Amino acid sequence: MSHARTPSPLRKRKAAAADLDGPAPPRAAAAPQLPQPSPPLRLLDPLSRVRSFSIIESTLREGEQFANAFFDTETKIRIAKALDDFGVEYIELTSPAASEQSRADCEAICKLGLKAKILTHVRCHMDDARIAVETGVDGLDVVIGTSSFLREFSHGKDMDYIIRQATEVITFIKSKGLEVRFSSEDSFRSDLVDLLNLYKTVDKLGVNRVGIADTVGCADPRQVYELVRTLRSVVSCDIECHFHNDTGCAIANAYAALEAGATHIDTSVLGIGERNGITPLGGLIARMYTADKDGIKAKYRLEALRDVENLVADAVQIQVPFNNYITGYCAFTHKAGIHAKAILNNPSTYEILRPEDFGMTRYVSIGHRLTGWNAVKNRVQQLDLSLSDDDVKAVTAQIKSLADIKPLGIEEVDTLLRKFHDRVHAIGTALDADGEPMAC
Amino acid sequence: MSHARTPSPLRKRKAAAADLDGPAPPRAAAAPQLPQPSPPLRLLDPLSRVRSFSIIESTLREGEQFANAFFDTETKIRIAKALDDFGVEYIELTSPAASEQSRADCEAICKLGLKAKILTHVRCHMDDARIAVETGVDGLDVVIGTSSFLREFSHGKDMDYIIRQATEVITFIKSKGLEVRFSSEDSFRSDLVDLLNLYKTVDKLGVNRVGIADTVGCADPRQVYELVRTLRSVVSCDIECHFHNDTGCAIANAYAALEAGATHIDTSVLGIGERNGITPLGGLIARMYTADKDGIKAKYRLEALRDVENLVADAVQIQVPFNNYITGYCAFTHKAGIHAKAILNNPSTYEILRPEDFGMTRYVSIGHRLTGWNAVKNRVQQLDLSLSDDDVKAVTAQIKSLADIKPLGIEEVDTLLRKFHDRVHAIGTALDADGEPMAC
Repeated sequence: MSHARTPSPLRKRKAAAADLDGPAPPRAAAAPQLPQPSPPLRLLDPLSRVRSFSIIESTLREGEQFANAFFDTETKIRIAKALDDFGVEYIELTSPAASEQSRADCEAICKLGLKAKILTHVRCHMDDARIAVETGVDGLDVVIGTSSFLREFSHGKDMDYIIRQATEVITFIKSKGLEVRFSSEDSFRSDLVDLLNLYKTVDKLGVNRVGIADTVGCADPRQVYELVRTLRSVVSCDIECHFHNDTGCAIANAYAALEAGATHIDTSVLGIGERNGITPLGGLIARMYTADKDGIKAKYRLEALRDVENLVADAVQIQVPFNNYITGYCAFTHKAGIHAKAILNNPSTYEILRPEDFGMTRYVSIGHRLTGWNAVKNRVQQLDLSLSDDDVKAVTAQIKSLADIKPLGIEEVDTLLRKFHDRVHAIGTALDADGEPMAC
Repeated sequence: MSHARTPSPLRKRKAAAADLDGPAPPRAAAAPQLPQPSPPLRLLDPLSRVRSFSIIESTLREGEQFANAFFDTETKIRIAKALDDFGVEYIELTSPAASEQSRADCEAICKLGLKAKILTHVRCHMDDARIAVETGVDGLDVVIGTSSFLREFSHGKDMDYIIRQATEVITFIKSKGLEVRFSSEDSFRSDLVDLLNLYKTVDKLGVNRVGIADTVGCADPRQVYELVRTLRSVVSCDIECHFHNDTGCAIANAYAALEAGATHIDTSVLGIGERNGITPLGGLIARMYTADKDGIKAKYRLEALRDVENLVADAVQIQVPFNNYITGYCAFTHKAGIHAKAILNNPSTYEILRPEDFGMTRYVSIGHRLTGWNAVKNRVQQLDLSLSDDDVKAVTAQIKSLADIKPLGIEEVDTLLRKFHDRVHAIGTALDADGEPMAC
């Protein structure tokens, strides 16, 4: 109920290890005490919650609204357990009023005895609330549309009606001793004064959280910051935020909301939900890791992220996108020569996320025409070949020339390096890019 | 060179058509004059460029650094033509110094006579600049690492050296009459005073643009806004921004940069680039469309977006992600009963992007347990069946009950609706959810 800032425990920063997780084992000589860059020092606003927030994981509610989603009971239970194992604070389930099986599944998940609190998401109706409170959930996330568009084209109710309805439903849920959140829908296209009036009213009724929802995905981070900051000065309860990703701001908006004092963020695994979905769990984790690496590592079992994502991707029959945050197959692949050189010297130069923290590995790609001689030199050393810098430059030119026709696999590069090395040592002189002895 | 705001031409807003692009043809009676919601009125800051910016499309440079990318000459030309057809203002190519084929391809693309200006991206080296100016490009995007980490672990140069080198390279490029941008790398982990000094120096040398690059993907929108706004007060030239997406802010950061006065944004198709890439072209378009729909529709051929994306996806052998902006297969799929009802009344309630503007269609899914009777009623009307609201509610309960076991295809729903309709009319009374005549 309080919005006082509770900083997460500070843990001693570990020195970064410059692991070289390429296709070959790291060189033993990799410098172990390289400096670890951080973003420039920024003093946290006292209201900021970027170091102290909770995740309301909604794969089993918002995610069920994804086009492909149909979760049977067993799948729901596996997902709930995997999310609990990862460490999310809340798991949100589809309304038990949606269907009989939805109700039964809600009861079944409540009985699992998970560490995470179990919520269900219901319309602001006594009918829905009455069914929900009987399932054993820890709390209800109540929602009603407040924008003039939803009032006109969805439920057709005016603000006075909404406030009366909200009062009845909230009072009922509280009488059952359950946690209650009250959220508007389409908050960023709602009348600000209407919204603040409503939130102020429900705050006085004792809700645990009010909710802001960018239901259509139109909000940008500066709008979010302003609305949350305004709301922060109006209510004393917690603030939950829900962002759709239609225009690509769902992660940035979540971050802006926390900066402004929001306390809870809704996510789903891989972002699945209505249309192209909401703030993805993995993407939020990537973002928050940059703000509070030690806090995030302490709160969540990061190396379990990939398994949770694979579980959900299988359940809804999608591929994890090639560019997925953290676990996408190229998230830690470095290719340009200039990048590869620096990464090999100190991974922090081009990485804000340490792959090891997520059970992932780094890959430095060298068999292409953008390669550079420093990256090739590193591979030469990994293979324990002995070549001068001039030799490495010459063989790099050879790789570039071949890769102009077709990229080379690592085995092809290795063969080329070994042959070049053998030839150099057989004839006892440097070779040029064509593999011919240098004139000098 | 000027940073004066040049507003894009305002065009008359068209009234929104409430097209129902479901699996069946739209009902003729769909209300044509429904109000079109917009985000709340926000006065644009005089420095904001959200309504007047240029895209520097870097699929053929940053995109070539994507793990899978290998573009042969023919593919590069097809991509360049497709981007030109879409309407991007600039196309950026890999440095001609990277390989002989890169140089030849750069020349070939310059000879195509595209409307877009052709740039190439080079290190701040006279060697690279000399090769580049001979290719026929309109301009050079020059880059050097300025963060202490890059200075220590990449090129090892100090700021005085960087300034001397920059001066020589810029003076040379200008002497050839070409456009020149000078960018730092890893700008958000560079020393602010060093950065501003460097930008002020190159601005006085007459560069067309200075560049800010979030090379590691660590920046958040508020940082971006602050840095760009500060820079806006220091230089008089244009400002280009390049954002990596490791922590999910690449689109939001681009938007924040434009709000603060940046003029040019780097993109790549589907965001392909180093690691998980940069601001995606489609995602930026989605974002900017919400800020200036008419301007974006006037500048770019939006219905060509999907073709450009498919072309690039095929070239680098990836699937367009399920949740891709605008063109992802579920971007306009509506599922929850509450959403479906409102969407059918007025699509603007749950859509900030009009699918028709992008050559896409809307789909309202009804054969699942989250369905609602209003969505089902709409289908009943599409099929020209005659059922009372009570009948529709009863058959909706039947759909939910069946869909609790397995989701239904639209054909199965239609069969069910037709059978229910025939039964009602055969026995001349309302039926309950089990298809039995109502007691009353």
